[in-house]
Amino acid sequence: MIFASDNWAGAHPAIAAGLTAHASGHARAYGNGDLDRAVRETFGTIFERDVAVFFVSTGTAANALSLVAVNKPGGVAFCHREAHMTEDEAGAPEYFTGGGRLCRVDGPLGRIAPDELDRAVQRYPAEFLHSGRPMAISITQATEVGTVYALEDIDAIGAVARRHGLPLHMDGARFANALVSLGTTPAEMTWKRGIDMVSFGGTKNGCWCAEAVVFFDPAMAAEFAFIHKRAAQLFSKARFVSAQFEAYFRDGLWLQTARHSNAMAAALADGFRASAAARLAWEPQANEVFAIMGQEMAARLQGLGAVFYPWHAPAGYAAAMAADESVYRFVTSFATTIEEVDAFRALL
Amino acid sequence: MIFASDNWAGAHPAIAAGLTAHASGHARAYGNGDLDRAVRETFGTIFERDVAVFFVSTGTAANALSLVAVNKPGGVAFCHREAHMTEDEAGAPEYFTGGGRLCRVDGPLGRIAPDELDRAVQRYPAEFLHSGRPMAISITQATEVGTVYALEDIDAIGAVARRHGLPLHMDGARFANALVSLGTTPAEMTWKRGIDMVSFGGTKNGCWCAEAVVFFDPAMAAEFAFIHKRAAQLFSKARFVSAQFEAYFRDGLWLQTARHSNAMAAALADGFRASAAARLAWEPQANEVFAIMGQEMAARLQGLGAVFYPWHAPAGYAAAMAADESVYRFVTSFATTIEEVDAFRALL
Amino acid sequence: MIFASDNWAGAHPAIAAGLTAHASGHARAYGNGDLDRAVRETFGTIFERDVAVFFVSTGTAANALSLVAVNKPGGVAFCHREAHMTEDEAGAPEYFTGGGRLCRVDGPLGRIAPDELDRAVQRYPAEFLHSGRPMAISITQATEVGTVYALEDIDAIGAVARRHGLPLHMDGARFANALVSLGTTPAEMTWKRGIDMVSFGGTKNGCWCAEAVVFFDPAMAAEFAFIHKRAAQLFSKARFVSAQFEAYFRDGLWLQTARHSNAMAAALADGFRASAAARLAWEPQANEVFAIMGQEMAARLQGLGAVFYPWHAPAGYAAAMAADESVYRFVTSFATTIEEVDAFRALL
Amino acid sequence: MIFASDNWAGAHPAIAAGLTAHASGHARAYGNGDLDRAVRETFGTIFERDVAVFFVSTGTAANALSLVAVNKPGGVAFCHREAHMTEDEAGAPEYFTGGGRLCRVDGPLGRIAPDELDRAVQRYPAEFLHSGRPMAISITQATEVGTVYALEDIDAIGAVARRHGLPLHMDGARFANALVSLGTTPAEMTWKRGIDMVSFGGTKNGCWCAEAVVFFDPAMAAEFAFIHKRAAQLFSKARFVSAQFEAYFRDGLWLQTARHSNAMAAALADGFRASAAARLAWEPQANEVFAIMGQEMAARLQGLGAVFYPWHAPAGYAAAMAADESVYRFVTSFATTIEEVDAFRALL
Repeated sequence: MIFASDNWAGAHPAIAAGLTAHASGHARAYGNGDLDRAVRETFGTIFERDVAVFFVSTGTAANALSLVAVNKPGGVAFCHREAHMTEDEAGAPEYFTGGGRLCRVDGPLGRIAPDELDRAVQRYPAEFLHSGRPMAISITQATEVGTVYALEDIDAIGAVARRHGLPLHMDGARFANALVSLGTTPAEMTWKRGIDMVSFGGTKNGCWCAEAVVFFDPAMAAEFAFIHKRAAQLFSKARFVSAQFEAYFRDGLWLQTARHSNAMAAALADGFRASAAARLAWEPQANEVFAIMGQEMAARLQGLGAVFYPWHAPAGYAAAMAADESVYRFVTSFATTIEEVDAFRALL
Repeated sequence: MIFASDNWAGAHPAIAAGLTAHASGHARAYGNGDLDRAVRETFGTIFERDVAVFFVSTGTAANALSLVAVNKPGGVAFCHREAHMTEDEAGAPEYFTGGGRLCRVDGPLGRIAPDELDRAVQRYPAEFLHSGRPMAISITQATEVGTVYALEDIDAIGAVARRHGLPLHMDGARFANALVSLGTTPAEMTWKRGIDMVSFGGTKNGCWCAEAVVFFDPAMAAEFAFIHKRAAQLFSKARFVSAQFEAYFRDGLWLQTARHSNAMAAALADGFRASAAARLAWEPQANEVFAIMGQEMAARLQGLGAVFYPWHAPAGYAAAMAADESVYRFVTSFATTIEEVDAFRALL
Repeated sequence: MIFASDNWAGAHPAIAAGLTAHASGHARAYGNGDLDRAVRETFGTIFERDVAVFFVSTGTAANALSLVAVNKPGGVAFCHREAHMTEDEAGAPEYFTGGGRLCRVDGPLGRIAPDELDRAVQRYPAEFLHSGRPMAISITQATEVGTVYALEDIDAIGAVARRHGLPLHMDGARFANALVSLGTTPAEMTWKRGIDMVSFGGTKNGCWCAEAVVFFDPAMAAEFAFIHKRAAQLFSKARFVSAQFEAYFRDGLWLQTARHSNAMAAALADGFRASAAARLAWEPQANEVFAIMGQEMAARLQGLGAVFYPWHAPAGYAAAMAADESVYRFVTSFATTIEEVDAFRALL
Repeated sequence: MIFASDNWAGAHPAIAAGLTAHASGHARAYGNGDLDRAVRETFGTIFERDVAVFFVSTGTAANALSLVAVNKPGGVAFCHREAHMTEDEAGAPEYFTGGGRLCRVDGPLGRIAPDELDRAVQRYPAEFLHSGRPMAISITQATEVGTVYALEDIDAIGAVARRHGLPLHMDGARFANALVSLGTTPAEMTWKRGIDMVSFGGTKNGCWCAEAVVFFDPAMAAEFAFIHKRAAQLFSKARFVSAQFEAYFRDGLWLQTARHSNAMAAALADGFRASAAARLAWEPQANEVFAIMGQEMAARLQGLGAVFYPWHAPAGYAAAMAADESVYRFVTSFATTIEEVDAFRALL
């Protein structure tokens, strides 16, 4: 009953097998091998257009370098108040951009509110010397609190970005979970809605270490090969990432694992709905479930072998709680089994 | 007959198997799992003392972050003129240190000459405001040109470092190749000679992606967890590196692969010694062989399937050459076979 | 009737004369001259203890480098939401610190609320790898909205700083105006209340260009000479700053000019209190007055020769306004005359 | 007999008077005043074309920010081995560029040798990911060793810059001294020879603190207002710099002071030529004289009141010296008198 995080899982067997399959033989280093090229083309197929793809070692690297690609002197990027890039990356975006700023924007349940965004951007007039200058907007899909931007939500953010001439980034650490949640295509969820670049995450969804930055406009990536290398992110044996992505995309594995995770989360949510001792904090839409329960109850469940953690829920997110209650996060992954979920539901 | 680079090889079967063995099951993320801890302890065993170990994604990251750990305002690090950190890392050390400088020091055959080093450091008086301040010395073992610092060579560099109160770093991208070349122990080659930190590379010697920064003085690593995370180098599924290192160290695999690579290089060197059409540029000591031959001859060999590249050899390294001759680099790895070498020798 | 900003004034005649008096003769460069030393000692006299003093060219430089002096990897500094360093310095603090973050804290009328500060700091647990780490607190005295922290207000902030082991910085761009407003001593307003370093501004109060960073603990300034030089802030002819500060401090000129500015502001405030057409937005305490009036009225006054600008007042600062009203800022300086103020009051 | 440095002098009386003349009255801040605009136009007149001009506080700031304006990821700037930016700025160029590199190029007597430059640039192939990328060339006029690039020397450097598509910067800390030495015009010495930007120094030649970055192509300066502000270099009371430059340029004062300094240096040089106890190390061309003499002799002169310092002369610059001899630097300025020179010559 491990619901601690989707990065507590290892690798999907197909990913491990894919890696092993490419272990032998020589290939050009630094992403110039045949497999590397083929995998980059697969990205193009999946996104239904030419894309520029760069592998990086962590989601933090993907986010930070995406911002470096579009930064300017005094640059300010806008993200949700709870976004990973501002809450959980130890200042990496600021560090890699050489002092770029993240401006936190409000919005309910992890989604930036378009009007709040518009107001926030307007507080930084682009030609005013003193304030700092807008340089990018970033949304997280699925969000940090297990919700998903609907396509029209992304449209609305895209409209603000276009109005201010700002590049629009998507932190897709849980890209696949959002995708299958919406039942849409990668193209529809990204560039057709105005997204310019994606931190495309495979790690949380069954890979060992497979993250990529994807640009939909090659011009925006013109300098990126240098940004990428200078940031110590150019793998010499890049095929070890390519091999993972090859297996990830083959026969839609990535969609299957995402669907499975989401289904396990839905089953967990059903458990909370049926429970008298706990309740959903808000409706989950991907592979994270947030529940309210008494702290004693939580301790009891943990004592019985369930692994999960409390979550600092922003004011207004969750329904009213008693003083002895808290919000807890439950994350499912490709490796979560229905038996685990059932066992936990039985405890509930 | 692939002698292009040791990073053209994939992964040793035992490494791939080790990874697969750890694919299933849950483990704490971010390096806090049992396997992660066990592997860090293995580093301690190998180095015969307590060490602080951090996994990074590339050798460039290892070098750059080692310098960040000891940098100061106006800091200058001293490395060999041909060192990887100044020749092949696209300015990553300068970038990560926020503008630290690399001062290139001369010395024959890839090794810093201690008296040149002393002179170079003295050109930056530590308390003079205007010049910049010495902050570290870095040596590469094995060097970029396939030679190795003897233990007394490291002693001599260590003496200069101590005289100036400077931390001493070893770029060990080919640590194992140097180690077996000298027939010594990790402790003897490092901290017993005054080395304070090592970029410990496993990738070139049979891993997929296994690099680490090793500190011999925990105090020097006090801030490193934050430096490491901020640099986007904290793997969420760190066990995929731990699993590689576990297999790497088990039963001395790393020494076997290094011995094999070095032996293949020695066999290649024999080939050049026996050849009338080519000759050694200088004596190899690890897994890289540099040879002088006519450009036409090189093209002919390449046409016959041998993969290798010309090398920009600094003045004075190689014996006199004719105008139509160049220096070429041949790198062997765990994956090089004696059949390949023999085939190449036959061509010679 | 120029109330645009205190930096629209030139230099006080005594400052200009002081500069001229030191124009001839040779002196050691880079702050090593006799005058430079004497002026640094005067700072010690004024603050009643040994201080480390460094001249910089702008208040932005003073603020940014103060933070550099105490920054760490992933560092976060806490300042008021309206502070100059986060609103008006184009990201200089983030840039000079190599990616440090400013966390904006709320509090009424330009003053950080101690309990908000405490909560904000607690959101960054010092040993948690992912969030970023508190590294400093900064308060602005006088604040950006013309108010002043009382001594007990500073005590309260100092207590939060001490509890979290954080250095406490004071942006004293209008240090003298706050000082005479409180009728206290420099020592009482700073280190006796827990302030560790001050951006000490002379420019707005009658100098041409005289700003300094003052440290009360020499240990905190140990690296600062290098930080200062590397930031291109070491004046070669430092005496041109020293000469200004010499004249500034002589016979209490700086207190006189500050008292004058504050008195002019008070006279302006009286005018608003007596006016039917405008009213004070809040009570001024230094040399800035904020008033509410109809936009048409403001335009009329501007048409008649009064120079002043609208101010973006945060929600809750000012009393309720009609839709056609705005907040306007009026700044006085050493150069403001009672005739100007009277002329403006007549218009009101 | 002060020959220590031209920055030991104070301000020319006309500069001090000019400052005082502008002390009273109000003017727009941040360089938007009438005087500021007029002075920027004067720069255009002097350079015979539209220029973008930005005031900075130090020559180090001018050099560092010039490079920021043209930097790219992995950027490398090429300067002379003895250039101020690499020898005397404590790493400021590297710091402000966020890790840009300075590559030191050889050449006799302070001037970059064009063929050495070409070779150095070629060592960084612009499209090679690993090495770093050429981003600028910088020459110093007059050089650090008191020599001057002839117009055809600048042409030759300009040709290399054009061939590699690199912007060409001139560190003109002693611009006026070089200009009058060549007897040419600012236009001829700069953009007509391929110079793109100049660090234009007034401080060493009679100002208190008057340095500017001048761009000949406005497009290159497109982002510079933000670069400048973010670097804490935007003076609030910019007119205190404008007032200096106004006086500096009025009636050719700047050329007169430069001619005077150069003449004093020439007189000093005559003294060395006539002396049996000392000799010129090389021929001076501006306001710095380098002489060889016995260390005992030097100490004797210093004991008699002459102030000057030894100079680390690169191998090959000076004629052969005895073991007890050293090279010493003597710098003249607007404030040097012929009486001082004569007194020193008498001692010689």
